[in-house]
Amino acid sequence: MSTYVFGHTNPDSDSIVGAISLSYLKNALGEDTVPTRQGKISPETEFILNKFGGKLPELKTSYAGEEVYIIDYSDLAQAPEDILEATVLGIVDHHKLGDLTTATPLECWIRPVGCSNTIVKEMYDAAGIEIPKDIAGMMLCAILSDTVIFKSPTCTKVDTKACKELALIAGIEDYKALGMEMFIVKSAVQGATPRELTTRDYKEFAMGDTKVGVGQLEVVDLKVFDDMKADLHADIKKIKEESGLHTVMLLLTDIMTEGSQILVVSDDNSKIENAFDIKLENEEAWLAGVLSRKKQIIPFLQPQF
Amino acid sequence: MSTYVFGHTNPDSDSIVGAISLSYLKNALGEDTVPTRQGKISPETEFILNKFGGKLPELKTSYAGEEVYIIDYSDLAQAPEDILEATVLGIVDHHKLGDLTTATPLECWIRPVGCSNTIVKEMYDAAGIEIPKDIAGMMLCAILSDTVIFKSPTCTKVDTKACKELALIAGIEDYKALGMEMFIVKSAVQGATPRELTTRDYKEFAMGDTKVGVGQLEVVDLKVFDDMKADLHADIKKIKEESGLHTVMLLLTDIMTEGSQILVVSDDNSKIENAFDIKLENEEAWLAGVLSRKKQIIPFLQPQF
Repeated sequence: MSTYVFGHTNPDSDSIVGAISLSYLKNALGEDTVPTRQGKISPETEFILNKFGGKLPELKTSYAGEEVYIIDYSDLAQAPEDILEATVLGIVDHHKLGDLTTATPLECWIRPVGCSNTIVKEMYDAAGIEIPKDIAGMMLCAILSDTVIFKSPTCTKVDTKACKELALIAGIEDYKALGMEMFIVKSAVQGATPRELTTRDYKEFAMGDTKVGVGQLEVVDLKVFDDMKADLHADIKKIKEESGLHTVMLLLTDIMTEGSQILVVSDDNSKIENAFDIKLENEEAWLAGVLSRKKQIIPFLQPQF
Repeated sequence: MSTYVFGHTNPDSDSIVGAISLSYLKNALGEDTVPTRQGKISPETEFILNKFGGKLPELKTSYAGEEVYIIDYSDLAQAPEDILEATVLGIVDHHKLGDLTTATPLECWIRPVGCSNTIVKEMYDAAGIEIPKDIAGMMLCAILSDTVIFKSPTCTKVDTKACKELALIAGIEDYKALGMEMFIVKSAVQGATPRELTTRDYKEFAMGDTKVGVGQLEVVDLKVFDDMKADLHADIKKIKEESGLHTVMLLLTDIMTEGSQILVVSDDNSKIENAFDIKLENEEAWLAGVLSRKKQIIPFLQPQF
């Protein structure tokens, strides 16, 4: 019987690459694991897999009765619906500790760093297992993505050190250029439907008695949104209605000028205005310096609820 | 401002020694931490501190507004009441993942091994920090205690390897003899009140819609209980009434013959009989080979509720 290794619903590059890199490590240590995914991959992840010849993990959304390792989350909201019927052997994550509990002892590698693949790198080093060249390249990209090429306030020295070492293994000299290439792919939003874009990197957060949804699109130039901002705004309004949320926000993040334009639909705009000390105009505002949803958005919204 | 490092309520040797060993490590890495404890220590822990000149951590039960590391648990039932008002920087544990959640990213070292101090040993090694001789001796004792001198089914190769290395550092040749010396101290139950004994190592577990309390006393010869078994049985009956529990059990564990006599007070004895395929006589039974509450009692009780 195989053990499955997978990231969160609505997978980002860290979730997909993490499933691949962690599964390889576990197999090198004598286990029999298979990387899987809970949903559709993004163009950025597709770029990474193509670049390094990575195999797309199979789609699998039900795990009752199975043994699993999970990566990049520890909360039930991002887990498969039947996760409590699975045996969680381990968790690798870099977020706050979520509400998943287990019935048996397990292995948790949770660190306050910028990316789960930085922790997988630590695990390879601790186990004395060599990282294959292609997997090192993918892990490098996952870290560059999560840390916005080291610009995000979530980035730590551990992340930058891991990237340097992974770049050496992968034989990549200018890994910041690779990061830019990847973000340019990420910025290609033409041809995608508004819903594909609003949900590409979308998460819901429990706040007070209610829920807030926050999506994020990171691009190298906000001009790509000029013709579609109205459609995106209309779509987050729909999401809010469909899901009965208090607030839905979309962050259009410009990684070059380093800031985010926020589009807001809320039952109470003053909460958002108070959280960031701003005035919304047409339910929009510019937040200079804001790149990280985790560190610069959620902790400020939470006390308003 | 100091950061506090502490184990669970009703602390065992792993919790007290773990606070000391983890705090020393964090300080060696440049942090400013203080080991504390949530309750009274056991005679076994007192023996360990005396043997190696360890300082008793200060008693502290409230941590609102403080930064903390916790060791040997991850559930709210064993945490200080105001833990959710503290900032949990890290968790070191070897149990199933509990219901504690955090508001910020943290460091978790959770492993399916026999003792939290085995994991602290891994942390020292990963950080390249030398373990002082006295702390190595205390960590060795904590692991010998939790693994019942390697006899418990919870004991892994990682635990035995850690013990060998810690014994070398501590300059202790016959560490199994040290373990026996410690368990003989643990077996000295004379002079203690029934309540002191029933609660010395007592934990409550949520099962179905109700709760079950399970205490354990590990001794080198069950004869020490000959004159007090009736009093212990009467006392767990009182605990059941005071706390409104479905069941309270006390395991009298003989580490030499390797088994446990169980004393039971329950709303439904058949649940216990079915769990272990036994017949209770006078609300007692002998469970041959049973040394571990975590691995040999709880997983069998849970499905009955």
